Formats: sequence, structure tokens, C-alpha cells
Amino acid sequence: MPHSNHQPCKNKPKEVGIVREETFHYNEAFHLSNGNSLNGFELRYESYGKLSPAKDNAIYICHALTGDHHIAGIYDENDEKPGWWNHVVGPGKPIDTNHFFVLSSNCLGGCRGSTGPSSFQPQQNAVRYGASFPDLSISDMVRAQKALIDHFGISELYAVVGGSMGGMQALQWIVEYPGFTKNAIIIAATAQHSVQTIAFNEAGRCSIRGDLAWQDGNYEKGNGPDRGLSVARMMAHITYLSDVGMEEKFGGDRRLDPSTEFEFSVQGYLDHQGKKFVERFDPNSYLKLTEALDRFNLVREEGLEAAVSEVSTRTLVIAFSSDWLYTPKQNKDIMDALLKEGKNASYVEIDHTHGHDSFLIDSGPFLHALGSFLRTSDSEVSLLNENDDGFRKLKDRYEVKKEADFRAIDEWVMPKDKVLDLGCGRGLLLEHLSATKEVQGLGVDWDLNNAISCVSRRVPIYQEDIFTALSKFNDNSYDWVIFSRMVESLPEPGSILKEAIRVGRKVAVSFVNHGYWRNRFNFLLKGHRVLNEVYPHEWESNHLSNHFSIGEFEDFCSRLQEDGLQLEIGRRVFYRGDWINKCTWLPNLRAGLAIYEIIKKT
Amino acid sequence: MPHSNHQPCKNKPKEVGIVREETFHYNEAFHLSNGNSLNGFELRYESYGKLSPAKDNAIYICHALTGDHHIAGIYDENDEKPGWWNHVVGPGKPIDTNHFFVLSSNCLGGCRGSTGPSSFQPQQNAVRYGASFPDLSISDMVRAQKALIDHFGISELYAVVGGSMGGMQALQWIVEYPGFTKNAIIIAATAQHSVQTIAFNEAGRCSIRGDLAWQDGNYEKGNGPDRGLSVARMMAHITYLSDVGMEEKFGGDRRLDPSTEFEFSVQGYLDHQGKKFVERFDPNSYLKLTEALDRFNLVREEGLEAAVSEVSTRTLVIAFSSDWLYTPKQNKDIMDALLKEGKNASYVEIDHTHGHDSFLIDSGPFLHALGSFLRTSDSEVSLLNENDDGFRKLKDRYEVKKEADFRAIDEWVMPKDKVLDLGCGRGLLLEHLSATKEVQGLGVDWDLNNAISCVSRRVPIYQEDIFTALSKFNDNSYDWVIFSRMVESLPEPGSILKEAIRVGRKVAVSFVNHGYWRNRFNFLLKGHRVLNEVYPHEWESNHLSNHFSIGEFEDFCSRLQEDGLQLEIGRRVFYRGDWINKCTWLPNLRAGLAIYEIIKKT
Repeated sequence: MPHSNHQPCKNKPKEVGIVREETFHYNEAFHLSNGNSLNGFELRYESYGKLSPAKDNAIYICHALTGDHHIAGIYDENDEKPGWWNHVVGPGKPIDTNHFFVLSSNCLGGCRGSTGPSSFQPQQNAVRYGASFPDLSISDMVRAQKALIDHFGISELYAVVGGSMGGMQALQWIVEYPGFTKNAIIIAATAQHSVQTIAFNEAGRCSIRGDLAWQDGNYEKGNGPDRGLSVARMMAHITYLSDVGMEEKFGGDRRLDPSTEFEFSVQGYLDHQGKKFVERFDPNSYLKLTEALDRFNLVREEGLEAAVSEVSTRTLVIAFSSDWLYTPKQNKDIMDALLKEGKNASYVEIDHTHGHDSFLIDSGPFLHALGSFLRTSDSEVSLLNENDDGFRKLKDRYEVKKEADFRAIDEWVMPKDKVLDLGCGRGLLLEHLSATKEVQGLGVDWDLNNAISCVSRRVPIYQEDIFTALSKFNDNSYDWVIFSRMVESLPEPGSILKEAIRVGRKVAVSFVNHGYWRNRFNFLLKGHRVLNEVYPHEWESNHLSNHFSIGEFEDFCSRLQEDGLQLEIGRRVFYRGDWINKCTWLPNLRAGLAIYEIIKKT
Repeated sequence: MPHSNHQPCKNKPKEVGIVREETFHYNEAFHLSNGNSLNGFELRYESYGKLSPAKDNAIYICHALTGDHHIAGIYDENDEKPGWWNHVVGPGKPIDTNHFFVLSSNCLGGCRGSTGPSSFQPQQNAVRYGASFPDLSISDMVRAQKALIDHFGISELYAVVGGSMGGMQALQWIVEYPGFTKNAIIIAATAQHSVQTIAFNEAGRCSIRGDLAWQDGNYEKGNGPDRGLSVARMMAHITYLSDVGMEEKFGGDRRLDPSTEFEFSVQGYLDHQGKKFVERFDPNSYLKLTEALDRFNLVREEGLEAAVSEVSTRTLVIAFSSDWLYTPKQNKDIMDALLKEGKNASYVEIDHTHGHDSFLIDSGPFLHALGSFLRTSDSEVSLLNENDDGFRKLKDRYEVKKEADFRAIDEWVMPKDKVLDLGCGRGLLLEHLSATKEVQGLGVDWDLNNAISCVSRRVPIYQEDIFTALSKFNDNSYDWVIFSRMVESLPEPGSILKEAIRVGRKVAVSFVNHGYWRNRFNFLLKGHRVLNEVYPHEWESNHLSNHFSIGEFEDFCSRLQEDGLQLEIGRRVFYRGDWINKCTWLPNLRAGLAIYEIIKKT
């Protein structure tokens, strides 16, 4: 068939189409964390995609506080509002229903079809639970979800995914059922509410309880504390957005809104949010669910590490830069605890101005991280084996240079070693080492694009600056800590190298030898720095740096030994100026690149 | 008298002691910004210290939204709660009542003695204004304060000082009455509420208006919308604190509070705040004052620069790092507008974890900045004249080095020049230049201690990073832009130098010549960097840097010329390695220090 001149028409991802709500009935007594129990419960749920015969392709999605089980699709042809994560879940979408069976239910205690305060009590027709609904916990919600999954005969989840309250449920899942789910994505979540968040929730609850219509929770349906709930929602809604995002949406010229009864346009927006919310949410549900959130606390006295010690799930934690409700810091706390316990975990921070609600918004890097983390081995295009030795094809001399030190380090690392690669870039070295030697690797890099590239390669990644990341590891928690040509860009590198020696049993340091003869003569004759492939910029376009020579590096190691650090220099590899041929004598003068093995004596 | 061995007993600053409220009656019609008017008004006020015979020592203090005029002192011997700024105002305190006459009044529209919605209407005894009280503006409040000051016969204020709403009033003061106040300190304020802040206020107002007891504002005194006001206060109170500050106070072990009816300790705190507030604040006042704040907008269509164009007050803007209500960014916007209009303005950012309320707290650097900015010329100890040529006494060779470039620059700068000193450190050069040549200087330095040192020396200071600061100035807004030995610590310095050439008519650059022969030979022989007074650190303890030589700097200037920048190199001064003797030939090899004058051709 001849090639057509037309651009091939890209198949747009299809939608899940028309979906139907189902109800799961649990007819036994269900014991709650606080000692009370429910006399059975119902969960309203939806599912998309097909459960495989082996029942090994199920992904469970947990929704946020005011979300529900309607993730994707529409209810009929005229339905203009698809599910809340319709851009994430569907055929060919990041959570791909061509591959996965996706399941979600309205949470226990909710008001969108599952049993909650607005439900009728069993055996007491026409009497609602109301204020008598027992106190709930995030764990209770997760255990109810587990009953639904058991009902499907699923004995292992491929993944659990959730944002906000859903992220806290995902965290609870991997803690409460170790090994039950192979993968987890915890998005914009926390292991414990901050005091500030509890305070906002409490102000919201006071608003509901302060409304005379609340009547101690025994209001008639449709005649409840609407004003109080509406104020609670307005306030909470502000915490879901960011300062910058609100300014973009309602600031500047749009600040004043003379077309309506409101002086400021944000007033009209909040008023609308409050009114809409009152129509769809039950005040008692709001009280019970926010209390469950405020009580959620995996930190407790023993610390978060104790809580996650049994986890055996590959986990990705995603935070958003402008989220001030569940901050990057709070999400990193989850990552840090998983790392301290030696788990397979990654952390990525998406740059987005929409605050906490960023996880609901269609954003490229976020969807890319989600989708590539969930990729199964059969769906993935292998990034390896592009040339014989396992490294990616090296296209030119510059490429050779870029990986000269990888070859030395590749020789040193032993199968199944634990390897920490600081400034790992796109994760090439760790990808290679894990494919060829099954190393347990972690990359650290603070660039988002690099971090997402690592996720795509299935390389665990901590998007963080090197010094902060290092400070979080226990002593001797890695066999190797690797600095591949990045010490020269660290301020006060001595203290960072010392930290690396604390964390690793061995440290590999590769660096450009500033004492190389060409640099010296150039400087002698012209008083200029050299310009070449390694130093491509005139001084005025340089980033700051801190170059050093082989001699200076060895002097530093001697000073560390004099200071009492038990270490020795192991293997050394020197390359000449071409970074291809090795160099054996006078390296401080003749070598262009040096790779050192520092061994901690124990 | 022989010296005593005892430490001299430091005189503790005394308190202002027992104070008395006074009432000022304004008996004419008072026209408000929105066209309405009040048939006279009263202001409740207090004063401390003595008004000088020349009436030139008055400082007016503006209070925050829920504050009042009781700044300092106690009402009787048994009064345990002194005024809210008692640690700031008093004899020997930062606002020193030995020198100053300090005045403050409860704002118009308030509920602490001044005329507001809870006041009785004139000629209608026993009828309160209530909801009929007219809409107010910050300008109305300031004009009422002016009437009080006129009543004292004061024709010029020494200073106006205020934090939060008080800071907005201080800003309004210098805009509305140009020249009336010699100095102003604007603390934790904004020229315009962010959308987020308006949103929080609106949620609070909805809470008040949604309370059935509000009755469209026509509640009986003592029988108002207490629940609604209490929720509004809780919510607002959260915005006055910081996430970190709340965690310190109510987090960790103090999280749970089993001793009370509240599950979380912060609940008890908020409940207490809400209840206390309801006892002392009128809901209608809260509505009117928060609306005035939300409406306050000096930015408008014309921009903030237009609003401040007539200002002729020496101004200090102080922000707090953890303030997320009126952020450092919002405070900097005020500074930026003043700078763009060429005003005498300083900006200092205090590192403090207490959020917006930091300005109410006793903190050293803040009080130091306040006190030294307000210092009068007769109370100040001159920092100058310690040796003959006007520079501070140079104690040793190292000191000489530190100021070698100052001497060259001192020769170049002309009387009354406008001088921008980037990386100004403690402000020594600008202090000297303004004392000897009356230059109009501004220092930029992002270190808080340096910034406060500048304030102490009466050197205007912008505590900001150099690149950000530079981007805010108009073209040709300075006669001189000075880089004193700091280009080598800038990343990609070329773009920063270009910005400096845009902003200044002339640029002075002093730098350590990396091409100095000792550096070259040292590097040739050992491949090591040199260690000396200028480069005191081994590589592992170095900050990142970007050294360059005289040759490289001149090459860079040539490249700029080739790129079409109209500039030429003017005077050059080279010092030898001792930084004392000048060097005339082969400077790239023989000079240790170089100072260049770059002249923009116009």
C-alpha cells in the first residue's frame, strides 16, 4: 500500500461511555475501629474495563472527601457531566481500561449511595441514622472497600490509587493489607492532618453545629443546617485552591463583578460553591468524614516508620507545588518513612498553580507520571538493549563522554546491591543496573522532567535536593552512594560527601579533573579558563561551580582520615582527555576524568 | 571614684505606667469616601510621652482590625494586661517615650469607644447605628485620625507606624497627606487584599449574616449573631498564625487534649478565641471593617506607582517570612512601587514562625529595625568619622583589603548621585557616600543582619536577591550601580551585568583578578587552587563561585559591544597583590584586584 500524504489520523482515546451504578450489600455485622459496629452496610460502586480471568488487573480508585464513585463515563447520552476523573480513566488513558479493571465505591459514611448518616437504619424503615451514625475512621472505609473487592473474588490488586482523602485511604491500604496491592499511587495526601488543617475543619464543623437548623444532628432531610454547611464549604474550598490560582481566576480586572449582586467576583463564586454543595452533601456526613480525616494519624507515638514497616507495595507519592492543604512536605514525610524502612518508593512534585485541587485537573506531567508508573511489563516498550553492553546507544563522542564513568561504576556494583544515585538525571545508570544486576536502586534529582523520566524507566526516584535527601537516610542503608559528575556543582561539598559516607558502605565519585594539563597551561598563558566540551561556557554564562583536581580530592580524603573517619580509597579509574583511553601515570596532570571508590571501614 | 567590681546594674526600660483613655469629639459633618457623611464622630484615644514645645516629636500608631488604641501601659495598679504593644512603646523602648509623644485612637467604625455601628446615633438617644452605619474606607479612618492630630495642633508627624490594617492606614497616610509625616513604618501590610484574603473574609461575613440572630444587622446589643461571629473569628484567627507556628503550639504530643471536652487541643484554643472575641467585638463593626479592608485598593487601574507618586516620606516596609495573610510578596509590592517612583524606602523581611501575628510578638530583629529606623539624629551615635578620610578605622591589612575598592569608587561618585549598591553588606560604603556626598543611595542585600545593620546606619536597604531587585528598576534610574566584589558569586553573571547596565548610567565593578600570576603558577605546578586571604577555603568547604580574570572581563565587555550595547570602559584601577599599591602595567598578570567603570553611551 502506498504511503498516503495525509497525516495519519491519530486515534483519540475513547471514553468509557455509558456506565451504571451498582450496589454491594454487606449483610454481616461490621466492626468499626472505635469499638462500635454497623449492622451491615451498602456500598454504591462503579467499574470500568474488564476483570481478567486471572483477576490480576484490578485497580481500585479512592475518592476525596466530597468526591464519589463516579470516576468516569456518563449515565446516559444526554449526560453532559462525565465522572470526575474522566480524563484519567478510559481506553488509552493513563489508567487504561483496555488493560485494567477499574473499581471505585462511594466511601462508608458518605452520602452518595453508600451507607452513611443520611441512610435509613436497617430494620427500622424510614428512620435515618442521623447523628446516631457511629464515628468512623479511614481504616473502616478501607476495610469496607476490601469487602467489596473480596466480593469480586480478587485476591490481589494491581494498584490502589487515590488523591486527598483518597490518598490517605491508599496509604491506609498498603499499611493495613501488606502485599495485597502490588502498586500504590498516593496523591496530595498526608499521614496526619496538620494542626492548621484540623483548625479549618473545626471552624467548619462549628459553623454547621452553630446553625440552629442542625438540631444536634436530628434535622429532617432537606431541612438541615444549610447556611452552616455552606460556610464550611466556602472556607474549605479556599484551602483547596492556591493564592496564585485564585488571583489568576478572580484577580486583576476580574476582581470586581459589577454584573451581579456581589462586589467581588470571588464572592459570587464562593456563594455558588456553597449553594451547590448544600444540594448534594449531607451535613452529618460532612461532620463524620472530616472528623475521620482529622483523626487519621499514622504517625502516633511510634512514628510513621513503624506504621509502614510491613508495607510491601511499590509506591509512588505525588505532591503539587502549590498545595498548601496537604503540602509537599507532608507528602515527603510519607516518602521518607517508606525509604527509612527500605521500601520501593518514589516521590514526584508536580509544578502546578491550582493548589490542592491540582490532582483533579488535566496536566501533562501529572498524567505522564501516573500512566508510566502503572504501565505493566507487557505494555511497556523496553528502553534497554539498544546496544550490546546494555547501555543506550552512544551516538557520538560527547555521548561517550557522558557515560564513561557509568562503565567503571557498572564494573564495581555487585548483583542485588542497594544503590543510591545522587543527581541521577534521567535514570540511565540505575535502569541499566536494575535490568542487568537486579540492584535495588533509588535516584535523587530535583528536576521534574528527570524525575518523570525515571518513573517511565521504572527507576525509583526521590525528587529532592541532594543534601536534604541524604539527611533522611539511616547509616549504612546503601551499598553504594554514587556521585556521577555532580560534586563540582555542590556548595561546600565536603559536608555532603561526609553524609554520603555515613549513608553508604561505599561511595563512588566521578569528576572532571581540573588539574588536567590543558587547563593548567591555558590558565598560565592566558589567565583564562579553558573552553571545551566539558566547560562550554564563557565565564559570564556559567553556573556557579567548584572545580577541583585529583590531587585536591585525595588531600580531602586524607583530611577525612586525619579527622578520624574510618575510610580508605579503593579502586581508582582515570581516563585521559578523550574520556575513552585510560590513563595510568601522573593522573593529576594527565587525566581528564577520575572515578574513585571510597570504602568505609567497618 | 574607684571602679567597682560589680557589673553595672543596667537600668531596665521603664513602663509608661498608668494611662487614661480620652475622647476626641468632632462636631462637624464628616464626609466619607463613598459620598455619605457622618453627623460628627468621636475617637477614643490614648497618648504616652510628652509633646515637645515645637510639636515635632509625635508618632501616631495605627492598630490592626481587632486591636485598639490601648497600646501601652495599664489602667490601674491591679491591671495585669498592659496595652498590646507594651514591649514596643515606653521609656527606652524601640518607640521611645523619652523622646516621642505617642498617640493612638480606636479607628472610626470600631467598637472600642470610637464612633461605629454600635454607637448611639447623635440627636437620637438610645438608637444605635447598627446596620445603618455607612460603608467606610481606610481613607475615612485616616482622615478621622488627621482631625485628632489637628486638634493637638501638630502640623507634622515625626512618624506614623502600623501593622496589618494599621500598616494599610500608614500607607494611606503617606499617600493621602504627602509630606505630613517625615517617617513611616508599614508592617505586615498590603496595598490590596489578595483574592484569597477577600474569600476568607467573605466566608466570615457569610457566617455572621447566616446566623439567624443577625436580623439584617438590627440585633439588640448583647443578643447578636454570636455563633456566626465566633466562627468568623476562628477562621480569621487561623490566617493570623502560620502552619509551623500552630504545629509548634498545638502539634506533636499536645495534639490531643484529653483533659477537656475537645478531642484536639487546637479546638479548645479556637473555641476560646471565638468566645473571647464575641464578648469584645461588635458583629456590625466586624462586617464594616473587613469590607473596608477588602475594598482597600491602591493598585486600581493606574497601578500602585501612580498612587505613591506624591509620597515624600522616608518609609520602612517590614514583612515576616511566615506571614501568608499579607505575604512578603505583597509587602514588597509596596516597596517596589516606592522605588520605581524614586522614593526613600527600605524593605526588611524578618524571619519568624508566628505568621502574620509576628508583629505583635517580642522579637529582637524586628524591634531593632523599628527602633533604629525611628532614631532621631540627636539620639544617634554617629558611626562615621572614626578616621580622617571618612572611612571606618581600618585595623589591619585584611581590613585595608576589604575597603580598597571603596576608595576608588569614592573618587568616582559625584555629590548627590543616585547610587545602587548591589550586595551592600552592612552598608559601609553607602553610609560614607551619603555622609560625605549626600548621595541618594539604596543597598540591596538578602541577609537580614546586613539589612538591619543598614537600617541602623540610615542607609536605605532592600532585603532581596540581586537579580530580582534589579528587575524591578526602571531604565537609567541610578547614576551608579555598584558591584563590590560580588560578581564572582553570581550564577550566569553576564545577564545580571546587562541588567545593571540597563538600570544605571554607570556601573562600577570590582573583582578579584583570577589571572593574577600567583594563581597561575600555583595551578600550573600543583594543579591546585591557591589558598590565601582571598581564597581562604579548601575546595570542599567552598561556596560555589565563578572566578574570572581581567582579560575575561574585558573580553566580555567587547562581546557586549559587539552585541550592540552602547557602552565603553571608562576608568580602570588595578591594585597589586597587596591591594594597597596600584599596578599600571600587565594588569591581567600582575593585578590582584581590579575596579572598572562601565559607562553607558546615551
